[in-house]
Amino acid sequence: MSETTSGRTDARRLRGVLAPVLTPFHRDLSPDARRLARHCRWLLAHGCTALAPFGTTSEANSLSVDERQSLLDAILEAGVPADRLLPGTGACSLSDAVRLTTQAVRSGCAGVLMLPPFYYKAVGEDGLFRFFAEVIDRVGDDRLRIYLYHIPPVAQVGFSPKLVERLLRAHPTVVAGMKDSSGDFGNTQAMLEAFAAAGFDLFVGSERFLLAGMRGGGAGCISATANVNAGAIDRLYREWRSPEAEQLQAELNAVRGAVEKVPVIPGLKAVVAHHAADPGWLPVRPPLSELSPAQGEALLADLASLKLVLPELRG
Amino acid sequence: MSETTSGRTDARRLRGVLAPVLTPFHRDLSPDARRLARHCRWLLAHGCTALAPFGTTSEANSLSVDERQSLLDAILEAGVPADRLLPGTGACSLSDAVRLTTQAVRSGCAGVLMLPPFYYKAVGEDGLFRFFAEVIDRVGDDRLRIYLYHIPPVAQVGFSPKLVERLLRAHPTVVAGMKDSSGDFGNTQAMLEAFAAAGFDLFVGSERFLLAGMRGGGAGCISATANVNAGAIDRLYREWRSPEAEQLQAELNAVRGAVEKVPVIPGLKAVVAHHAADPGWLPVRPPLSELSPAQGEALLADLASLKLVLPELRG
Repeated sequence: MSETTSGRTDARRLRGVLAPVLTPFHRDLSPDARRLARHCRWLLAHGCTALAPFGTTSEANSLSVDERQSLLDAILEAGVPADRLLPGTGACSLSDAVRLTTQAVRSGCAGVLMLPPFYYKAVGEDGLFRFFAEVIDRVGDDRLRIYLYHIPPVAQVGFSPKLVERLLRAHPTVVAGMKDSSGDFGNTQAMLEAFAAAGFDLFVGSERFLLAGMRGGGAGCISATANVNAGAIDRLYREWRSPEAEQLQAELNAVRGAVEKVPVIPGLKAVVAHHAADPGWLPVRPPLSELSPAQGEALLADLASLKLVLPELRG
Repeated sequence: MSETTSGRTDARRLRGVLAPVLTPFHRDLSPDARRLARHCRWLLAHGCTALAPFGTTSEANSLSVDERQSLLDAILEAGVPADRLLPGTGACSLSDAVRLTTQAVRSGCAGVLMLPPFYYKAVGEDGLFRFFAEVIDRVGDDRLRIYLYHIPPVAQVGFSPKLVERLLRAHPTVVAGMKDSSGDFGNTQAMLEAFAAAGFDLFVGSERFLLAGMRGGGAGCISATANVNAGAIDRLYREWRSPEAEQLQAELNAVRGAVEKVPVIPGLKAVVAHHAADPGWLPVRPPLSELSPAQGEALLADLASLKLVLPELRG
């Protein structure tokens, strides 16, 4: 297992709190690279260890491959360090996944977060295994580190423990970890027990599970809410062994609960828009819709009562 | 409602039997435009009124937008008439859907078959409406005819009667019909009763429902199995009022039943490969997998016992 060992001592491995970065759009719904780069820098300065652009929260699947590639180039050119990026590069199409993943690796990104191909449902384990094997083979770069993006409530298609085991056995240095957005800590626990000891880095997909995840040997969290609450999430990440950990977890849950009362993606955009005093953050691409004024006001009032602070976001 | 009337007297409207054309791949999994064009011509000569390339059966979502555009150009250049094409142009990304739809319209295609954006689940009717409204507005071509592709078992996201009504009211000449692949004839019946009289053309998504659909005022069928059985399906389409209709329906169901015993897309490719004596038809892109040899043999034996004939496919 020397290949595994070398993978597991990889100094580039990310841990901690990552935000699936919101993607701002201009009024005409074209992506807004300037606001995106500014938000990336703000997140890295305020609690995020690293960033996972082009996730579900980023409306990545509402972007074309060209748009995703241009935005990645733009944030790199704006000085966001590649070794702190874990861009989403999964796609239904093998050719798209290869193209996006190749760009990320050649740009020096720390890794990629890959959805399984999610159009066909009830596909076999063999087909999913072959999809990832083809991506790894076609990208053909030893630096590639793949984090499996398990989000069955949205993608419907997920990663069974057997599929993870098979991928890890075939590609031990490449398959580096998972974001578990199943919403089921039982699944997270099973993945941790099966694979964490071998160096498979498990990120919980919601900070609700951060304390439990860290206690079980997890690597951190990649959570939508990190777009507005990364500082507090990072504090629990760093202090999960402290006596305050349960209290910190409860405070995170309260903020998360407030955000989850509304559709999360337009909700987070409304929070950023408000604290940045910048309505340019509001647009979402269809099929998503902006919050109604009443939803937006209720969310901001809830978060104000929880004393959510987004320092230095304005300007 | 003069706009509606003009839409409904549109001479270019398709009716009859359409195949969602299988997409052949080379061994390296690149799309095989030459075999595709040959299959298109064969289908038009053997029972298909028109063709719906880039559907679910076509593995369209396993292709990049570039690959889809190149293949459409290639079949047009190979002489497949644009006015007999209804390419799939739906996508999760607004920009992709606009690009594919624009190409189809500018190429003179009879219409487009559009999946809803299918990544986000449980999105609101407003967001879906806005997605289609944006596509129609951005394509900006009076020739555009959209057929809504309702396939909730795969896409999960579908078209409610209320959404169809809203789209029809806002865009009466553009929204031309639906392919209903819900697998639920109750839904088909409800759509026919609500919208057929206004000229909304309903294609059943499986020939199992062809006779019932024609009796209810439907326009025909767009069915995977038309890749191998279009002649017989077309006969029922033409003779649905005849005394033999029930028998013809039963014969279609027997073939369909045999194909549905195995994964349908690799199954249909195995049938074409066998009858064309061309193993170049076998590859599928992951996440799909080819049939096992045992599955393939069983399928071919079943179809042989049903005396399925694919005339002039060889060569």
